[in-house]
Amino acid sequence: MAIEVYWGSGSPFAWRVLLALEYKRLAYVSHLLQFSKQEHKSPQMLALNPRGRVPVLKDGDYVCFESLAILYYLDLKYPRPPIFGHTPEEAGTIMRVICEYQAYIEPHLTRIVGAVFFGDADLGADEITAAMHAVASEARTIEARLAKSDWIVGESCSAADMVIFPGIQLLRRALEKPQAAALSSRFMPVEVNYPALGRWLTRVAALPGYERTYPPHWRA
Amino acid sequence: MAIEVYWGSGSPFAWRVLLALEYKRLAYVSHLLQFSKQEHKSPQMLALNPRGRVPVLKDGDYVCFESLAILYYLDLKYPRPPIFGHTPEEAGTIMRVICEYQAYIEPHLTRIVGAVFFGDADLGADEITAAMHAVASEARTIEARLAKSDWIVGESCSAADMVIFPGIQLLRRALEKPQAAALSSRFMPVEVNYPALGRWLTRVAALPGYERTYPPHWRA
Repeated sequence: MAIEVYWGSGSPFAWRVLLALEYKRLAYVSHLLQFSKQEHKSPQMLALNPRGRVPVLKDGDYVCFESLAILYYLDLKYPRPPIFGHTPEEAGTIMRVICEYQAYIEPHLTRIVGAVFFGDADLGADEITAAMHAVASEARTIEARLAKSDWIVGESCSAADMVIFPGIQLLRRALEKPQAAALSSRFMPVEVNYPALGRWLTRVAALPGYERTYPPHWRA
Repeated sequence: MAIEVYWGSGSPFAWRVLLALEYKRLAYVSHLLQFSKQEHKSPQMLALNPRGRVPVLKDGDYVCFESLAILYYLDLKYPRPPIFGHTPEEAGTIMRVICEYQAYIEPHLTRIVGAVFFGDADLGADEITAAMHAVASEARTIEARLAKSDWIVGESCSAADMVIFPGIQLLRRALEKPQAAALSSRFMPVEVNYPALGRWLTRVAALPGYERTYPPHWRA
């Protein structure tokens, strides 16, 4: 039975899973759901994930959700090429960097993106400025890693790249909006402020199959 | 070279790692740091983890931090008994439940605990009430799992139990405080409102080595 993946355009969480599937060159059936039609909340989808969130992976009879869990499952089930490294030490460091991203960057990044796209907060509010400072500071740490290596952990692309890349792309897209001009100067243009990060973005985008993972509605 | 673990009393993140070390019956050198003396921010600790947070694990020359990454590392390095299941499917589900806890319970739980212990927010504030509702609702889902099985995922204790248990214990400790009386009625006593969860708490506390993991200052 084929692997099936349910995803939505622009979801950074779904994007991670598509990057992993392509990196591992796994065949999969792609179900692109329309958030605007609430297709991720359909009875069929709620039967797979009661939270009505994507991504959802179905592999035969097995259903998994939460993007990090899907990456972990895929790596155990289809180990070649690995995305959590070759040794326990490398695996631990990849997971550590993912955990750090989720704990110290993602909440701030989500706040900024929400303020830009959904008007969750005033873009001039202190909390948004603080969030941007936090992201800019953490990005310096990633920049330092990427100044020494082509990939975030170790000598090859890993789950750490797959987790972080879609978030950075979403942030860039938000900061390119005219209303975010004042906020964006701490981060953009990425290629100038974070040159190694900029080269890494290009490197990930050159991976085989990348075009199939790119959010379709971003091309419009 | 021995495993060394740096931890602080009452940190739910550190507690997870101690539970895993004991469950795997690994020998380790315990470094109990005093938060009140800022020992987790000492130059020595900052050299291990620049964020100055615990737990930190040192295994020979290898250093790992972020509790989930440490659990993952330990399971790869010392696979018996496993804490991420026996199959890719079981592993994926254990990780999924951990991710759900971290995404949908932990932020609310942290908010409540912060309000009780540190006065971060008024205990009668709408946001704290909403956080308590969210935790109570998610606890129903865990209760349903534990009504069918002794452990949160599968037939034996796993990383999911180790991640969730310290958080629930910390929440109980907060809700036992007199100032939290009004707030606590949705959750406490656990044994009445969530009987399967209550039995599971007892079950975890009966694991070999549990006493060595219990926060020393909680005994006072």
